[in-house]
Amino acid sequence: LALVEPHDEECVAERQRCMVTNIMFEFQEYLNERSNHLLGYPTNLNCNHLMDLSPLLCFLMNNVGDPFKESNFGLHSKKFEVAVLDWFAQLWEIEKGEYWGYVTNGGTEGNLHGMLIGRNLLPDGILYTSKESHYSIFKGSRIYRIECQIIGTLITGEIDCTDLKEKLFFNKDKPAIINLNIGTTFKGGVDNLDHVIKTLEECGFSHDRFYIHCDAASYGLVSPFLENGPLFSFKKPIGSVSVSAHKLLGSSMPCGILISRKMHMTDFSTNIEYIATLDTTISGSRNGHTPIFIWYGLNLKGRIGLQKEVNNCLTNAKYLRDGLNKAGISAMLNESSIVVVFERPLDREFIDYWQLSFLGKMAHVVLMPHVTMKMLDDFLSDLVRKREIWYGSGEVRPVCLAEEIGASNCACSIHRNH
Amino acid sequence: LALVEPHDEECVAERQRCMVTNIMFEFQEYLNERSNHLLGYPTNLNCNHLMDLSPLLCFLMNNVGDPFKESNFGLHSKKFEVAVLDWFAQLWEIEKGEYWGYVTNGGTEGNLHGMLIGRNLLPDGILYTSKESHYSIFKGSRIYRIECQIIGTLITGEIDCTDLKEKLFFNKDKPAIINLNIGTTFKGGVDNLDHVIKTLEECGFSHDRFYIHCDAASYGLVSPFLENGPLFSFKKPIGSVSVSAHKLLGSSMPCGILISRKMHMTDFSTNIEYIATLDTTISGSRNGHTPIFIWYGLNLKGRIGLQKEVNNCLTNAKYLRDGLNKAGISAMLNESSIVVVFERPLDREFIDYWQLSFLGKMAHVVLMPHVTMKMLDDFLSDLVRKREIWYGSGEVRPVCLAEEIGASNCACSIHRNH
Repeated sequence: LALVEPHDEECVAERQRCMVTNIMFEFQEYLNERSNHLLGYPTNLNCNHLMDLSPLLCFLMNNVGDPFKESNFGLHSKKFEVAVLDWFAQLWEIEKGEYWGYVTNGGTEGNLHGMLIGRNLLPDGILYTSKESHYSIFKGSRIYRIECQIIGTLITGEIDCTDLKEKLFFNKDKPAIINLNIGTTFKGGVDNLDHVIKTLEECGFSHDRFYIHCDAASYGLVSPFLENGPLFSFKKPIGSVSVSAHKLLGSSMPCGILISRKMHMTDFSTNIEYIATLDTTISGSRNGHTPIFIWYGLNLKGRIGLQKEVNNCLTNAKYLRDGLNKAGISAMLNESSIVVVFERPLDREFIDYWQLSFLGKMAHVVLMPHVTMKMLDDFLSDLVRKREIWYGSGEVRPVCLAEEIGASNCACSIHRNH
Repeated sequence: LALVEPHDEECVAERQRCMVTNIMFEFQEYLNERSNHLLGYPTNLNCNHLMDLSPLLCFLMNNVGDPFKESNFGLHSKKFEVAVLDWFAQLWEIEKGEYWGYVTNGGTEGNLHGMLIGRNLLPDGILYTSKESHYSIFKGSRIYRIECQIIGTLITGEIDCTDLKEKLFFNKDKPAIINLNIGTTFKGGVDNLDHVIKTLEECGFSHDRFYIHCDAASYGLVSPFLENGPLFSFKKPIGSVSVSAHKLLGSSMPCGILISRKMHMTDFSTNIEYIATLDTTISGSRNGHTPIFIWYGLNLKGRIGLQKEVNNCLTNAKYLRDGLNKAGISAMLNESSIVVVFERPLDREFIDYWQLSFLGKMAHVVLMPHVTMKMLDDFLSDLVRKREIWYGSGEVRPVCLAEEIGASNCACSIHRNH
């Protein structure tokens, strides 16, 4: 794909035709094949509806600066962006006049922004986050020069409040910036917001001495549609939430939503005269297409459609967990979760084929809306067939996963009969 | 544009048709009108060729993590990205095995990344940057907690090396992180790399005690095509360069390129097992479409095409400057520049119509490839007509701009005859 200089200008049209027809056709074939075998990553690949928006591709749109302040640069989609933000504010229970937010370039930017608000409010605050947090949180603590206390986790992946309490107590002279995982990346474990707030209060932290950012990258759009109630809400003392829009909702490119409290933004922004807007975001110049992608997706689906998709994902998660169990394979599925954790396949080729994500002895499948039962059946029978090759002779045995997913979920030779 | 919940699922198809046909049609009309009157912002609106890539819009592409390390997440365009990076490395004179880089979400992310490399190498370094630097540089110093020394500028907008020398000398016990503006945002002033390096050396800074990041947001693709040689190069002791791709090249959404030295990246990256790649970028999950936009644009144009566009922009800049001069309007055009600075129009409506950017008593036009002589003629005659209304009665007089753009460029009643 190395770039080739054109000989002369006349051949431009010919080059254009060649490139599009040959290289792009081949590339689309590749993307199609890979889309049909993606199980390990939390991205919804159902993006066909976005083709309706392709006429916009010939327009530059830049939502530079603050979404709520129109710049005199006219090529933007801030009206769509604000409509999207209003929808999320309502979903996460914060009033229109009380929230601030923007459409980000993805979960990482949202996390970085939330942590930055926290640090601005509590400049000498210590960051507390569980060891199973997303890598962007640790990156944030490094680049922002915030001291970081890493907290242990339970088997489910959720934060261990006993460990949190010890560390909070030991550092109670300094304020606390908490990152709360609403769905950890690997196990889909959910930090218990009420327990965390109670722990803070028990350690003597008044509400003005802590700031909670919720990393709801994967579960921000799942949470409101669960039977056992939302996993977080602005009715509780949280400061910000970040969610990815290319995960449950689906988008051709990474993007996300950050919602925070307006009152925390007063010292945050700088007025930039020459763009005639406020520099309140991390990225400055911002993608104007993604807010329309999100707006369009939400309009088509609505809460009804999302509710249905979430239910479907939950059903498929149970279907896969049960299938693995029946086949005698170690597997864990948290309550109301769309992530199934199981033994890491021995074969790198198998992992690459199904694009599984792995960590130590574990692998996982994320049940996104594009994952069908047919895909799961194919995957399961492929896995069972391959395990015959890996373990059939008895020379190698499936590893014990008791430590990672609990003895009751482990199907190794020691635990399987207990 | 507020989001409306669908009554039932059956009406989804109907909603889809309505939205696309009505709202999007109207929105495209609006974008078309605004595109035809954009003069004040450095964005090339010629993006029609990107429509050829619209079939890709139904695929999610995420170039997560390091561009040079394929993740086992298969839906990415890293091969296109690396081809683009190779091209820029060659353009800015650094060998293939010696550089590192990535396609960013825009100039700001590139600047933030460059500054971060600088701070990692020189943790107690002081940032030196001119007062006319882009807002992302000051944002960077705040979020990274780097002490910042703001340096004065000359009339052209370029950094004042006398002031830089004083401040470097005063702080010579601490290393220096320099942000060099290759084209300031407002005046298109270019900091003189050779002067800055000489100043550092004169103040006793050895090469291991300074780091230079070049903010070449607008001029990174102009610089190599100028008659009087490139304005910067990796053959000199610079650490990183950031350029925007939605500026001279053109892209439907903000994006850019960051190129740095590979040897500086060794301590920078964290290996993230579950995405099977390195977390070397700020954004983590990254847009996979923009590298293809850039790749396609560069392939169609090549160096020949870009050379021609730059020449055209330079010619148009002189044409506008001369037109303003002839009409007796204060105006400045730096050498080899595509930015014309002139008196700020009195009328906010006029500013909004032509989407001019303004700062204090100045406004500017950025001569991007989409700006035609016809647009300039229309703009000039509109301005001359409006000035008759603003200044015709003699009650209000055009302001003096001698302090901002130099007495020789000022056409106020005091300076016009000198």
